[in-house]
Amino acid sequence: MGSMSEAATQVLIPAAALVGIGFALLQWFLVSRVKVSDSSGADNGYKDRLIEEEEEGVDNLDAVIKCAEIQNAISVGATSFLFTQYKYLSIFMVAFGLIIFLFLGSVKGFSTQSEPCTYNPTNLCKPALANAFFSTLAFLLGALTSVLSGFLGMKIATYANARTTLEARKGVGKAFITAFRSGAVMGFLLAANGLLVLYVSINLFKLYYGDDWEGLYESITGYGLGGSSMALFGRVGGGIYTKAADVGADLVGKVEKNIPEDDPRNPAVIADNVGDNVGDIAGMGSDLFGSYAESSCAALFVSSISSFGVSHDFSAMSYPLIVSAMGIVVCLITTLFATDLFEIKNVSEIEPSLKRQLLISTVLMTAGIAMVSFFALPSEFTIFNFGTDKVVKNWHLFFCVAIGLWAGLVIGYITEYYTSNAYSPVQDVADSCRTGAATNVIFGLALGYKSVIIPIFAIALAIYVSFSLAAMYGIAVAALGMLSTIATGLAIDAYGPISDNAGGIAEMAGMSHKIRERTDALDAAGNTTAAIGKGFAIGSAALVSLALFGAFVSRAGIKEVDVLTPKVFIGLIVGAMLPYWFSAMTMKSVGSAALKMVEEVRRQFNTIPGLMEGTATPDYATCVKISTDASLKEMIPPGALVMLTPLIAGTLFGVETLAGVLAGSLVSGVQVAISASNTGGAWDNAKKYIEAGGSEHAKSLGPKGSDPHKAAVIGDTIGDPLKDTSGPSLNILIKLMAVESLVFAPFFAAHGGLLFKLL
Amino acid sequence: MGSMSEAATQVLIPAAALVGIGFALLQWFLVSRVKVSDSSGADNGYKDRLIEEEEEGVDNLDAVIKCAEIQNAISVGATSFLFTQYKYLSIFMVAFGLIIFLFLGSVKGFSTQSEPCTYNPTNLCKPALANAFFSTLAFLLGALTSVLSGFLGMKIATYANARTTLEARKGVGKAFITAFRSGAVMGFLLAANGLLVLYVSINLFKLYYGDDWEGLYESITGYGLGGSSMALFGRVGGGIYTKAADVGADLVGKVEKNIPEDDPRNPAVIADNVGDNVGDIAGMGSDLFGSYAESSCAALFVSSISSFGVSHDFSAMSYPLIVSAMGIVVCLITTLFATDLFEIKNVSEIEPSLKRQLLISTVLMTAGIAMVSFFALPSEFTIFNFGTDKVVKNWHLFFCVAIGLWAGLVIGYITEYYTSNAYSPVQDVADSCRTGAATNVIFGLALGYKSVIIPIFAIALAIYVSFSLAAMYGIAVAALGMLSTIATGLAIDAYGPISDNAGGIAEMAGMSHKIRERTDALDAAGNTTAAIGKGFAIGSAALVSLALFGAFVSRAGIKEVDVLTPKVFIGLIVGAMLPYWFSAMTMKSVGSAALKMVEEVRRQFNTIPGLMEGTATPDYATCVKISTDASLKEMIPPGALVMLTPLIAGTLFGVETLAGVLAGSLVSGVQVAISASNTGGAWDNAKKYIEAGGSEHAKSLGPKGSDPHKAAVIGDTIGDPLKDTSGPSLNILIKLMAVESLVFAPFFAAHGGLLFKLL
Repeated sequence: MGSMSEAATQVLIPAAALVGIGFALLQWFLVSRVKVSDSSGADNGYKDRLIEEEEEGVDNLDAVIKCAEIQNAISVGATSFLFTQYKYLSIFMVAFGLIIFLFLGSVKGFSTQSEPCTYNPTNLCKPALANAFFSTLAFLLGALTSVLSGFLGMKIATYANARTTLEARKGVGKAFITAFRSGAVMGFLLAANGLLVLYVSINLFKLYYGDDWEGLYESITGYGLGGSSMALFGRVGGGIYTKAADVGADLVGKVEKNIPEDDPRNPAVIADNVGDNVGDIAGMGSDLFGSYAESSCAALFVSSISSFGVSHDFSAMSYPLIVSAMGIVVCLITTLFATDLFEIKNVSEIEPSLKRQLLISTVLMTAGIAMVSFFALPSEFTIFNFGTDKVVKNWHLFFCVAIGLWAGLVIGYITEYYTSNAYSPVQDVADSCRTGAATNVIFGLALGYKSVIIPIFAIALAIYVSFSLAAMYGIAVAALGMLSTIATGLAIDAYGPISDNAGGIAEMAGMSHKIRERTDALDAAGNTTAAIGKGFAIGSAALVSLALFGAFVSRAGIKEVDVLTPKVFIGLIVGAMLPYWFSAMTMKSVGSAALKMVEEVRRQFNTIPGLMEGTATPDYATCVKISTDASLKEMIPPGALVMLTPLIAGTLFGVETLAGVLAGSLVSGVQVAISASNTGGAWDNAKKYIEAGGSEHAKSLGPKGSDPHKAAVIGDTIGDPLKDTSGPSLNILIKLMAVESLVFAPFFAAHGGLLFKLL
Repeated sequence: MGSMSEAATQVLIPAAALVGIGFALLQWFLVSRVKVSDSSGADNGYKDRLIEEEEEGVDNLDAVIKCAEIQNAISVGATSFLFTQYKYLSIFMVAFGLIIFLFLGSVKGFSTQSEPCTYNPTNLCKPALANAFFSTLAFLLGALTSVLSGFLGMKIATYANARTTLEARKGVGKAFITAFRSGAVMGFLLAANGLLVLYVSINLFKLYYGDDWEGLYESITGYGLGGSSMALFGRVGGGIYTKAADVGADLVGKVEKNIPEDDPRNPAVIADNVGDNVGDIAGMGSDLFGSYAESSCAALFVSSISSFGVSHDFSAMSYPLIVSAMGIVVCLITTLFATDLFEIKNVSEIEPSLKRQLLISTVLMTAGIAMVSFFALPSEFTIFNFGTDKVVKNWHLFFCVAIGLWAGLVIGYITEYYTSNAYSPVQDVADSCRTGAATNVIFGLALGYKSVIIPIFAIALAIYVSFSLAAMYGIAVAALGMLSTIATGLAIDAYGPISDNAGGIAEMAGMSHKIRERTDALDAAGNTTAAIGKGFAIGSAALVSLALFGAFVSRAGIKEVDVLTPKVFIGLIVGAMLPYWFSAMTMKSVGSAALKMVEEVRRQFNTIPGLMEGTATPDYATCVKISTDASLKEMIPPGALVMLTPLIAGTLFGVETLAGVLAGSLVSGVQVAISASNTGGAWDNAKKYIEAGGSEHAKSLGPKGSDPHKAAVIGDTIGDPLKDTSGPSLNILIKLMAVESLVFAPFFAAHGGLLFKLL
């Protein structure tokens, strides 16, 4: 028992990260063996076919060429959108970096003198100006890593989509493995990359900070802010992009023209498929990277002012990083269960296999955490707890991380129950389509509300246990626990949009009904895993925000946040309102952009002769442009709301009100986010349930084009912005406001509350 | 300056209440001059006709007889439902009364010994057993008054509906005055009755308590609990009843059979019209009575442990009652502006006239409050503020009441802006129906979310100012300020369902299109005023709950509610989840009951020959029974959730966690309630906007039966449970949990937190 040596820590963390990157590259290589160019023809990997399923069209060169073309169009569209978005974001990064530098620099009037430390006033710490500089630097690093995570994810997804389609010709098992491996590439790259950059940054910052760990880890929190602010724009911008295209395409194509989803005659179809990649993949990647970065930063900051930091125990201090490193190894083993140890033979095995991934990674990780807690931590130490020191044992921390991990599993399973069409909740929603769209919407909304109950109890229990055992540090490591299996979580999450794209490509390439059925089955499971991914994202965001909130309160020097003071209470009620304000903006944006898209699609159907007959090609580029313009313009107001609220609240009303705002938006936003994601996921799968017609009950509601199916399509369309725009952006809202408050805490503590000072 | 004499106070309060009752009876008399019996024929009040409008069918005796029949059917249905409901509620009242007695009696082990007072331990107070007894008695009184308020409201409404229809033959102005006068009967009866019963109870309790004002006003809080618990079942049960019928009737009638709303061939039409009276009228009456009773009790309780109570200054102590008494007088004058001083000549004047009512009552009441604050209060006094005494001046309290009053006006006007089809938000929603139901729903949800912003800032400002000036007492009197014009608020609110019924009766009696247009115009304004009423109800509920929360915290002896403690935080996040759980239950209930209704209505259309052709009468009674059964069965789980949560949280987890639950459900529930009410109101009026076709834009979307209109009907149907079941029940959820916690506070303080004690 006791801490590992510093040398071992310094080797193990980067080693795990490198192993993760290596594994990701290996998966990429395996995916790349499916050839999509026309020169490849018939001989790659086609030998070990699944006997059980009928194979078709594997030698049809035309289909391969067609797929390659579509894939290329999607990839070009996504890349060009992201680059345009990054142009705007780079302006934001520079501007906000400057704000950080100026605000934090002004804390001590840009003095270059060393100061007594905040928590250990007998020591001298680096000047506030240095913290301003390094916070800004960390912010930029975090932002760049976040952008890189999203971009790589998108690249992999657009590389994998057509390959999944082609593999679907050979059977659902092959297609599943391709989609899942591609998801794993993204998951491992992101987890490893995030860890590595953080690790390297800490070591570089240490060259300057030396013994001043308080200043070092305070600056490092900028990394989380950078990661999450990019994630915000990624999620919101990508979410508006994808749903404007999706809703617009569906409203004209499915409802008015009665052509199937992803029909190549629909002018918005490329924009729709591009959207899946920039919204669900790039946005999700940035989001979970942000959560990971923030929970690490929150834990590291609290450590640095606890006994680890005071006694300069590097291994114990690095506990959060070692947990993440262990997570990469555990997820690596877990992945093998899906790709090599078991084989999917038919559609009904897909969801259980994905669920098994969650369970296996959780069980293995529990053992992993026990090891890490035993080796990396001294058996007893103290944690900073709002001005007092709390004595904590190493097995306490084990429980904190483990309960976060298991709470994540519970959230995942509950989400699956409420959004998969294998269970009664979604089937009830599908059944309510008999009486039309109105009852479908009423039942769907009720389902979303109901799905909040157990996750909230799970989060509350995790908070209570980890808070009681190790104060705010406990919450931060519980969040890390939930995120420790992020590589697996992202793999099964990214699998969803990849399958969705694969289905789209199959339709556009004119492949047979059979292929489309297989990709649809993958996609239905993908809707559920996407909902699970969102469940993880929101659950971890709740814990992360609370940890950041605690760190902020510690840094701002507040001893209590008493609801019974007017300053705090008004913050609480206004904070609880913010998720609504934010959702109003994003949903209205999707609605308006979708209306524009509808007009354009209608215009093309009316003015391009031969479009409906399939003899003319639609003008895809104009639809892509509508989504792009809408997304870039409309992401600014919600972004500004989130970024400016902490600055305004802190500067004008002071740290107590800001603390209220953070607590209010946290407890209210979690509910809105979970219910929105699950309602949307349930509607989507209720529709797929009717379309698939897999049971007597489902058959009685179908087929496609029946009245209940039409009602289900309306529900699905309403759910689009809920589940892919406003819902998942909300977890960023709560995290980002918290991390921003933490970064600016020294400024608010010094100069905040102007309005009350004036009165 | 300085307190009025006790004698003056003892005269003025009951005098104002009696004047209010007298005025209500006068209005009733005026309404009753419109004859609905067949013997009356042509000569009553028909002389002073409005010249501007075409009059028609006023001499048609058949229509009068038909109206009388329908009115009778509705009245019988509503009365029989309420009596059935009261049978169940009386069981609940006895059982819960017993719980109160046993829990509170057990605080000191049922001892009959006098005890040192809690806040003034040098004095002797009455035994805990006496408090248990009188709390139970107050609970029963509150429950009975609440039931009476709802019942009287329903009686008046079912008396007025056919009279409004008949007056509509003579012009919209006549019909408006009849509906409005009837609303005023309800408003004044309720306000006066609530004040009178409370006043009498205090004086009776005083006979026993004598100098022990602390015990007296602690017991009186049971009055609020009784009022609100009946309101909960009234709102939930009535809400399920009305919306099951409404949704069921619309889904078959409007969507499948293409027959108009309220068509007599629709078997659910009587149930639908009965529902308006038991849900929107009786439920609303109980709800606002509950708010009024609770804010009075919260204010009185805080007074009793402040300097007013300690120095036994009865006039100052009665300040909350005097404010309400002044409110009755002010509302009386305000009503004359609508009924006698101005005259409505055409449809476009209806909404401005109702808005003017709000403005006039607010301006007059501001002067009224100034007078009351000047005469009833000493110029300086101290208020209990969580263990410390706060010095307050009389003009501070003037500001507290006034800001509550004006915040109410702001909420009312903003609600009007977002739900009236005279402004762009609803018109945008209507416009989005062009692209179908999905965009309508997306825009409607976004509108509801957006409509939360300004009301929350208004509430936050009111809280900040009143909290800063006079601590929790300030909040309580701010709530009273918002409710001081309750008679006017209820009048314009009750006007809505009465007009809705009037329209239904016109349709069923086969009156001309012209008449139906007039009642539709009244009804569209009624949707807006109903939303305004809900806005008031939720705004005041927020303030009331906070005041009760403060009183609970004071009574439970907690000095602070620190978000940074795990016990409080888990309460906060679970509390914020409760509105979702509750909404899930109520919406699902409406959905399921509506499905049953749909089946029954379809069955009747399929099996009763001649029904569609209008030659056979439908079986209305079966539909009434479905609504009744569903409502009585389904109101139990949400009712249990609300009633049991404080008991479980307090007993098992203790007062800190319970405080967190109350704060969480308050800040989250307000948002859900406002957005649900306004979204529903907006959808309803977007539909009416298209139907009325009052502008070029509206004409381009219509007429009835067009695709945009069908989309609008779907939105309206979804909005029904949101605006009339789950939304308005939520304000009761937050108030009721708070008042229940306050009543049981002595028990929780003595025996609560069992689970943490065991661990």
